[in-house]
Amino acid sequence: MDKIVSLCKRRGFIFPSSGIYGGLEAFWDYGPLGSLLKNNIKQEWFKTFVQSWEDIVLIDGTVIMHPKTWEASGHLKNFIDPLVECKKCHSRFREDRLERKICPQCGGDDFTQAKQFNLMFKTYLGPVEDEVHLAYLRPETAQSMFVDFKLIQESLRLKLPFGIAQVGRSFRNEITTGNFTFRSREFDIAEIEYFVKPGEDEKAFKEWLDAWEKFFLDLGLKKENLRRYEHKKESLAHYSKRTVDIEYKFPFGWAELAGIANRTDFDLSQHAKFSGKDLNYFDEETKKNYFPYVIEPTLGIERLALALLVESFSEVKGGRTTTTEATKEAEIVLRLNKKVAPIKAAILPLVKNKPGLVKKAREVYQMLKPYFMVQYDEVGSIGRRYRRQDEIGTPFCITVDFETLKKDDVTLRDRDTMKQNRIKIADLVKSLSEKLNV
Amino acid sequence: MDKIVSLCKRRGFIFPSSGIYGGLEAFWDYGPLGSLLKNNIKQEWFKTFVQSWEDIVLIDGTVIMHPKTWEASGHLKNFIDPLVECKKCHSRFREDRLERKICPQCGGDDFTQAKQFNLMFKTYLGPVEDEVHLAYLRPETAQSMFVDFKLIQESLRLKLPFGIAQVGRSFRNEITTGNFTFRSREFDIAEIEYFVKPGEDEKAFKEWLDAWEKFFLDLGLKKENLRRYEHKKESLAHYSKRTVDIEYKFPFGWAELAGIANRTDFDLSQHAKFSGKDLNYFDEETKKNYFPYVIEPTLGIERLALALLVESFSEVKGGRTTTTEATKEAEIVLRLNKKVAPIKAAILPLVKNKPGLVKKAREVYQMLKPYFMVQYDEVGSIGRRYRRQDEIGTPFCITVDFETLKKDDVTLRDRDTMKQNRIKIADLVKSLSEKLNV
Repeated sequence: MDKIVSLCKRRGFIFPSSGIYGGLEAFWDYGPLGSLLKNNIKQEWFKTFVQSWEDIVLIDGTVIMHPKTWEASGHLKNFIDPLVECKKCHSRFREDRLERKICPQCGGDDFTQAKQFNLMFKTYLGPVEDEVHLAYLRPETAQSMFVDFKLIQESLRLKLPFGIAQVGRSFRNEITTGNFTFRSREFDIAEIEYFVKPGEDEKAFKEWLDAWEKFFLDLGLKKENLRRYEHKKESLAHYSKRTVDIEYKFPFGWAELAGIANRTDFDLSQHAKFSGKDLNYFDEETKKNYFPYVIEPTLGIERLALALLVESFSEVKGGRTTTTEATKEAEIVLRLNKKVAPIKAAILPLVKNKPGLVKKAREVYQMLKPYFMVQYDEVGSIGRRYRRQDEIGTPFCITVDFETLKKDDVTLRDRDTMKQNRIKIADLVKSLSEKLNV
Repeated sequence: MDKIVSLCKRRGFIFPSSGIYGGLEAFWDYGPLGSLLKNNIKQEWFKTFVQSWEDIVLIDGTVIMHPKTWEASGHLKNFIDPLVECKKCHSRFREDRLERKICPQCGGDDFTQAKQFNLMFKTYLGPVEDEVHLAYLRPETAQSMFVDFKLIQESLRLKLPFGIAQVGRSFRNEITTGNFTFRSREFDIAEIEYFVKPGEDEKAFKEWLDAWEKFFLDLGLKKENLRRYEHKKESLAHYSKRTVDIEYKFPFGWAELAGIANRTDFDLSQHAKFSGKDLNYFDEETKKNYFPYVIEPTLGIERLALALLVESFSEVKGGRTTTTEATKEAEIVLRLNKKVAPIKAAILPLVKNKPGLVKKAREVYQMLKPYFMVQYDEVGSIGRRYRRQDEIGTPFCITVDFETLKKDDVTLRDRDTMKQNRIKIADLVKSLSEKLNV
């Protein structure tokens, strides 16, 4: 794990937010490579579950919603952790996470009474900071899908089953944080609320579980590093009839990557009750009104980013690079799936002191930029530059050499096989498009 | 404007957040079409200024930053509006926006003393709500680019000039809101901090002004609906040496769509001072350390979305559709640029009661989905369906008719010319890719 954290910081994937001010606990910034990785994950999620799916639409709701939302959803009452404070050193802990009644900080054994602490960040709308103007930052994106359900269903004349999807920033005022980015206070969740007829929910749940796992496998997570964790009846969230977590084997242990919950008609019926609006669905076949049930596949974008970094991180000894600079120290190769790799190809002139090569390499770079996220690099030996690209998971390196000037072709090096093929410059866009499947 | 607001709600572009609870002033949700429009705008911004640009990298920072950030940036002291309250009806106003000293709500003329109200939303980190744990929601994304400047510059070995770009959610606790989505309390800003050598800032400013305007023109805003507004010296923000707004002629008047500011070395030098860190740039040519100057092109994503809706909205009288249903009432056509149009093509079987046509149309739909955002529609007459697609700006309609079953071709109808050409199904992906330039 330390190696991954170090790579992330050194190469501009992930680093602490507000680092120059000592950082901010459990807030992380995503740098040039990390932001591209996150974007690519969101894009794949969108392509798979919205663009290519039969019956799912996207929305983009606000972080701050009407406070009644959280009363109806049960978050005000139930989205809480039991907070205790060590009377000796004043450190704070989640009571349910303390292994024994001895403070992990100072060894004290006297704690305050557990206080029910709500994990939603609070803020105030307008200048007056009172109860009336109190609002919350959403801890999940799901509620806009329920609150907007009727409007969306009617304006698009949607028929069951159908889904509403959203990916966006969410906030949780966690008491205990840690494991790098795993438990952050600010993060992007991708959620789908898939509405079905009551009675068809259990079947839909099973289908989504398979579809959801397939998504992670397709992105390159290994089957043996994924497992299902079925929540016990007594530990289910207040809105859930059944919840299965999809756990990933992180270096710090198995932990939740994504989940699926059967939220039943809890949310819609609660919002109908609290708003006084009719949120029923009118079934044209049976001519009946009812609240649909909802299956919710949910995913932490940053958790998937971390899992993909972990999965693809490898160290290879024995000099992958064939130049004289190849050393005996291990070389890092990030075998990221091509779809999510931040940089798709690097364009490298063989040497930088030959103006003809540099000029040609820059032409190739300019040609590819409108189509793919590419990088130009001329600094250091070619072997060193290959290593730098391997380390950030770039699937292809394109080298412009002396042959290029004669034949207008380049070498295309594959990160994983390390094979180099010559390819005509005129065919590069087409060939890369096929290989990258974009 | 009313027509646009009504279209936005009716067709699922934009509607009030938390509508079933009476809405939340100046918070808006983007529905299935609006969220796609916003995504496409962000994607074009990314493709233009990050992917295709020579020297700009992307980051994705947190909304909540270390509170010292806002002390250093001057926002705590300067990001304020003068708030007054009418003593009679207790309505609150920005003093500088009151046209005369008479309350617009009740006509009263007695106001409280102006209070300096900070527009940043407040929250607290952890369970204790005191000064030490006070934090703010960012009112702009710029500050992470300054705070992370050194880390990014070093990890990517960037040389001046270079830019850091970010698009993300920002929050402002506005006192006066209004004009539909124009002045919202929660919105996405796309900002670029373009770092240059001191002395080269004024030239860079001019270049960016042109590049920035070109972006809007390329997306379809008309030249006559754009103008530059040069801020007067005395009204410049505290960090700015020069600011030019790019204003758009909205139905409610000329108003800021985007802007460019010369922030000088204000932010970097302030953060260096407040953090005690060395944020200088080491210039390898001159062997000198200095703070770069920064030019900041900034854009409200939702404002551009609104401008594009306004610009492309047209009503055509005289029956564009050639069927018997063509009525004499005006038909709405949203002439959105193809790149930002939410739905790229609609697939329509000529009639829905011929299983062969429906089956074929659905095959075409399935074939196109992995490549483009497309819609399948079989409800109503073909003329009515064309109108529905015109209304949401879909550039192409693909009709599967009886000829299709014999010749495996379809009609491709162009939204703007209304011309219909027959095209082989096998050529559709390629042809649409070219026409849509994806």
